[in-house]
Amino acid sequence: MRRGVRLCITGSEVMNGFVLDRNTQFFASELYALGLELVESRILHDDKEQILKTWREFSETGDIIVNSGGLGPTSDDLTVDLLCEWLGDQPIYEPHAEKRTRYFFERRARDKTRAISVEVALRQARIPSRAQAIRNTVGLAPGIFIPEQRFIALPGFPDEIRGMWQETLDKISSLGLQRSATRIIPVWGVGESQLFTGLEVPEGVSVGVHALPWGCRLFLRDAGAGESILNAAAEAVGARYPAQVSEDPLREVIEYCSANSLTLSLAESCTGGLAAKQVTDVAGVSAIFKGGAVTYANEAKQNLLKVQANLIEEFGAVSAECARAMAAGAAQLFDAKLSLAFTGIAGPDGGSAAKPVGTVFIALHDARSAETRVGKFMFPFGRDRFRAATVACGFLALRQYLMAAEKKPWPLAEFI
Amino acid sequence: MRRGVRLCITGSEVMNGFVLDRNTQFFASELYALGLELVESRILHDDKEQILKTWREFSETGDIIVNSGGLGPTSDDLTVDLLCEWLGDQPIYEPHAEKRTRYFFERRARDKTRAISVEVALRQARIPSRAQAIRNTVGLAPGIFIPEQRFIALPGFPDEIRGMWQETLDKISSLGLQRSATRIIPVWGVGESQLFTGLEVPEGVSVGVHALPWGCRLFLRDAGAGESILNAAAEAVGARYPAQVSEDPLREVIEYCSANSLTLSLAESCTGGLAAKQVTDVAGVSAIFKGGAVTYANEAKQNLLKVQANLIEEFGAVSAECARAMAAGAAQLFDAKLSLAFTGIAGPDGGSAAKPVGTVFIALHDARSAETRVGKFMFPFGRDRFRAATVACGFLALRQYLMAAEKKPWPLAEFI
Repeated sequence: MRRGVRLCITGSEVMNGFVLDRNTQFFASELYALGLELVESRILHDDKEQILKTWREFSETGDIIVNSGGLGPTSDDLTVDLLCEWLGDQPIYEPHAEKRTRYFFERRARDKTRAISVEVALRQARIPSRAQAIRNTVGLAPGIFIPEQRFIALPGFPDEIRGMWQETLDKISSLGLQRSATRIIPVWGVGESQLFTGLEVPEGVSVGVHALPWGCRLFLRDAGAGESILNAAAEAVGARYPAQVSEDPLREVIEYCSANSLTLSLAESCTGGLAAKQVTDVAGVSAIFKGGAVTYANEAKQNLLKVQANLIEEFGAVSAECARAMAAGAAQLFDAKLSLAFTGIAGPDGGSAAKPVGTVFIALHDARSAETRVGKFMFPFGRDRFRAATVACGFLALRQYLMAAEKKPWPLAEFI
Repeated sequence: MRRGVRLCITGSEVMNGFVLDRNTQFFASELYALGLELVESRILHDDKEQILKTWREFSETGDIIVNSGGLGPTSDDLTVDLLCEWLGDQPIYEPHAEKRTRYFFERRARDKTRAISVEVALRQARIPSRAQAIRNTVGLAPGIFIPEQRFIALPGFPDEIRGMWQETLDKISSLGLQRSATRIIPVWGVGESQLFTGLEVPEGVSVGVHALPWGCRLFLRDAGAGESILNAAAEAVGARYPAQVSEDPLREVIEYCSANSLTLSLAESCTGGLAAKQVTDVAGVSAIFKGGAVTYANEAKQNLLKVQANLIEEFGAVSAECARAMAAGAAQLFDAKLSLAFTGIAGPDGGSAAKPVGTVFIALHDARSAETRVGKFMFPFGRDRFRAATVACGFLALRQYLMAAEKKPWPLAEFI
């Protein structure tokens, strides 16, 4: 077997079932995308003997060890002390982390009623003396890199790991590992079975797929064919789905709006704020995002978005007509150039023979031309995936409408 | 270490990052709730040598081995053949699974256009001759139980595992394992460092903590003290945080509102729809949730929520005054009895010396009494955790206001 990375995830909260481990998948998919191999992932309690035994076993393989967890301030955070025991080293305060931790906790310590021991908090600012620090921009505990042991320690919090990942990859690269060329093609609005139907992959290219709420991520990996054949295979997939291949349709839309002085508003019924949440996940979006109305109740659709009561009576709140009126109403309410509206049946209740659970209407209003376009979709995948797919579909439609040569917003007929 | 269960999860789709492993958490939480110990979980590729090596290592510990995955019909499904190799056994068709598989695939085989080899399909009906079968009511492949090896093999599909879990637990119980009493205490609005400062845990009680965006989950487990001391320790934690121990404040609020015919609306600036998204994650909430306004832009705060322009000029959009006006405005706009408003600085930009990144004001308006209360908090944890903590804090405050003897909505001063 080629050399790769072995993952050790420590945390009794994972082993006791309180927390779903998402880190294995994060590391696995990131390493795979880089053409590296994740050989094994072990999840362990915060247990000295088990962790040390695992590190020793991993170390004998020559693979890179990535340990995640155990860097916090409490007594069950063992990573730094165990590393020192393993390597015969001593912990030191990492200067940058020490400064941040003191700043954060000494202010608190002045207030006697909620004093927290600065000494306890400072435990998380330690690294072994011979280690290099990996900077943590989200939390307080620095990561740890020990090149001669091919060892990396990261926190357990996914958002902290993400913030440290680029620097971590640089460290991994510095250790020298064989890579396979890999092309990752995010295809929005396509299911796994559908993507594979008629997919032709040349010999010497291995194929993998990761199904997601918004579509699939297709992985093509060079397994002997060479890079030019790999690239041709990737291009063939792109040509098959001209409107659906995108790293992130929402970001593309936001960048396009920023560059073209366009503003956006949202009207959400079934998606309940998820679309607004995703837009505002992007820092600095306030320049283009005017706001959103979560109009769960029909009276809110009427009062805020000026949807006519008789329209709802005649066609229902889940209808193309209502979606259109919501989109136009939101553009007006927020004085925005563009507006997306979502109305559908997330389930588990509320479906009918004519409009089963999973039915959703998405409308796109362009105030510049006073045009409104609406699409009907069917995402009968359960409440969470219904909402994720609906929101993704809306942003993909907006991207297609704004950025494609033809202003046809609904590339996803196949998704239905 | 006491004896427990060791988990081996096989599947290259997990190791390549295409699939999130949810089975570790399922097994972990089920075993933990029964007072059993999951010692370790290893996730491996479909790789003969690695899997056999892992089984042999696990076997030496005397722990029960649960293997998940590798029971399907394809060539990368290795479990049955590897078991036979390990034990010097031969595979046989398990009669019940053979019958179901033949029934299912022989019908299909008649349709030449989608013929699948019955021989291939029957691979998944096999078990080692000395094994007992665990009945699979969802899929076709039976589970495998080999008592003398303390070995259980289950499929990888979560819904199949759930269908087989009760019989599997009976098999595990038949092997005799020691169990421990456990108490789980969710404490909202408390950081890990703070929870441990001054925490007194009696001897013979083991303690663990799981830090979450909204606080901590503390777990206390009987390690010799006995159940009455364990219960007393759990009660002591509850007494220390009288307003903050709850399984799920938002659900409690929704149930309280439903039972008392109260309605809720939201006004969100920095949280950008996250609060509405969480409320509408709950199916059937439309009876009490009137709607939400995501007023990211100041003009939206003015137009929708009737926040006075001069109030924003004088105090800023991130201020107690603006939060109050937003909450009162949302209650009016949506004709709701209760309203929560959030305005703050999620970052990374937008902070100042007076109002650094992480500052947030949360207001609670009660239209019955026309009262508005506001709290100021500091969550300098990065954009995602800032928003999660802010929203959690709002729902916790509402729970405290509605459901506690004293209507003081801000139990979280300590969180700041």
